[in-house]
Amino acid sequence: MSCKLGILAGGGELPRRLIKLCQDTGQDFFVIAFKGQTDNQTVIGVDHLWSRLGAAGEIISKLKEKHVTDLVMIGPVKRPSMSELRPDWRALQFFAKIGAKSLGDDGLLKSVVSALESEGFNLLGVDDILHDLLATKEIYGKISPDEQALADIKRGVEVGRMMGLVDVGQSVVVQQGLVLGVEAIEGTDALIDRCADLKRDAAGGVLVKLKKPQQERRADLPTIGIETVKRAIKAGLRGIAIEAGGALVVDRDAVVALANEAGLFLIGIEPADYD
Amino acid sequence: MSCKLGILAGGGELPRRLIKLCQDTGQDFFVIAFKGQTDNQTVIGVDHLWSRLGAAGEIISKLKEKHVTDLVMIGPVKRPSMSELRPDWRALQFFAKIGAKSLGDDGLLKSVVSALESEGFNLLGVDDILHDLLATKEIYGKISPDEQALADIKRGVEVGRMMGLVDVGQSVVVQQGLVLGVEAIEGTDALIDRCADLKRDAAGGVLVKLKKPQQERRADLPTIGIETVKRAIKAGLRGIAIEAGGALVVDRDAVVALANEAGLFLIGIEPADYD
Repeated sequence: MSCKLGILAGGGELPRRLIKLCQDTGQDFFVIAFKGQTDNQTVIGVDHLWSRLGAAGEIISKLKEKHVTDLVMIGPVKRPSMSELRPDWRALQFFAKIGAKSLGDDGLLKSVVSALESEGFNLLGVDDILHDLLATKEIYGKISPDEQALADIKRGVEVGRMMGLVDVGQSVVVQQGLVLGVEAIEGTDALIDRCADLKRDAAGGVLVKLKKPQQERRADLPTIGIETVKRAIKAGLRGIAIEAGGALVVDRDAVVALANEAGLFLIGIEPADYD
Repeated sequence: MSCKLGILAGGGELPRRLIKLCQDTGQDFFVIAFKGQTDNQTVIGVDHLWSRLGAAGEIISKLKEKHVTDLVMIGPVKRPSMSELRPDWRALQFFAKIGAKSLGDDGLLKSVVSALESEGFNLLGVDDILHDLLATKEIYGKISPDEQALADIKRGVEVGRMMGLVDVGQSVVVQQGLVLGVEAIEGTDALIDRCADLKRDAAGGVLVKLKKPQQERRADLPTIGIETVKRAIKAGLRGIAIEAGGALVVDRDAVVALANEAGLFLIGIEPADYD
């Protein structure tokens, strides 16, 4: 990239990783940080603007003023209520235009992407920049799912796909064919924690994490990292299945080492293989 | 009924209500209580057998020995893991026969119903006996859902139906179009409690509780009672929508009084009206 990258930074440490990469490679960038979403430490020492999700006008003006050409959304963003959002005039016009499509999480993100594109920005996916993060179809680490785990993955794919069709959640936990939990707005961490208590007294369940079929890759890809694996171990799960091309695996080496040590499997799957 | 009623008693107070009705009307009955499911107080002073869900042989023998002709399943039953179930020979034959169909909750219950029917028992629904409990299409109490609440019910119906198609959950909580939570195995109470924390800073969400499309009415109908309404109030929800003909409303008068007092709506809906 010879152009200037605008980083729309969500929570977690992924935005800092990208900022570090830009600094290491001499890539020019500007960060938009969101109140209540972005970590404070993310913007320390870098050129940035603190804004609100609803302040579309301010954000777009600033990005243009800074001569940003390319944009990337990185790190999880919690969706606020309308009253928290306090949309400005620009954002209101946007909402008026997209109307009912804004109901689902993904409908909203997709609309944000096309609105930004219509402003002339080039939208990139995180995996366009941080190439090695995207999950591939493979067994990570030393442990393979056994027959029961494969059956649970199949059931998780069935349920996860249905949820995706109505633009809800990305994760399902299945134990011996029984769906222990389905993720909506609470996030995968909370889902895993909850399933620790719901688990039946038997070999632990499997977390299946899919991309929604209509998901906008550039707006939101689920992420697996050390924290996910730690929680899965603590909850007594047997393994994690993520969609190849549909999730980011952050800190691969550490994730694999941790999973191996705990006897947990981590597998990148092609959902169609489980039909 | 001039015949003898076998009561397969799950948890909660609904089984006691039925037992009371049998006693008041002189209906002959026999209770099967399940360890870890049925309340101890349910069987005090009545002819009963404590058994396990997996002890199909023992249960069927006892029901025949007691000359039971009709059977009713009443009160929620938590599904155990295979190892907790410890199926006896009869139950194993049953599981071998139904195979993969046992995966979903409803698949299992349906198979139990047909297995019991093939043993010559006449299976009744709770609503065949306790006629007034079944939810009807009406607005219970004084409060009606407003436009936003109706939109949230519509979204809840959309998501709940999808979940029902893969035989998971019965309840969804929606706030301003955003799906806060979806019920899997944790039960409606836990879902409501969780959504109290997930609620955005705005007018509270709506609980939508549907029957699964393929649900076996005689094996499992969702129940709304005082406890449900109390939790909904505590969680700051605006209202509850249940499927007409697909849920039992226990203690209607007290439920309505409580909802009115808290400004909560309770509505029995025909899901097809929200397509």
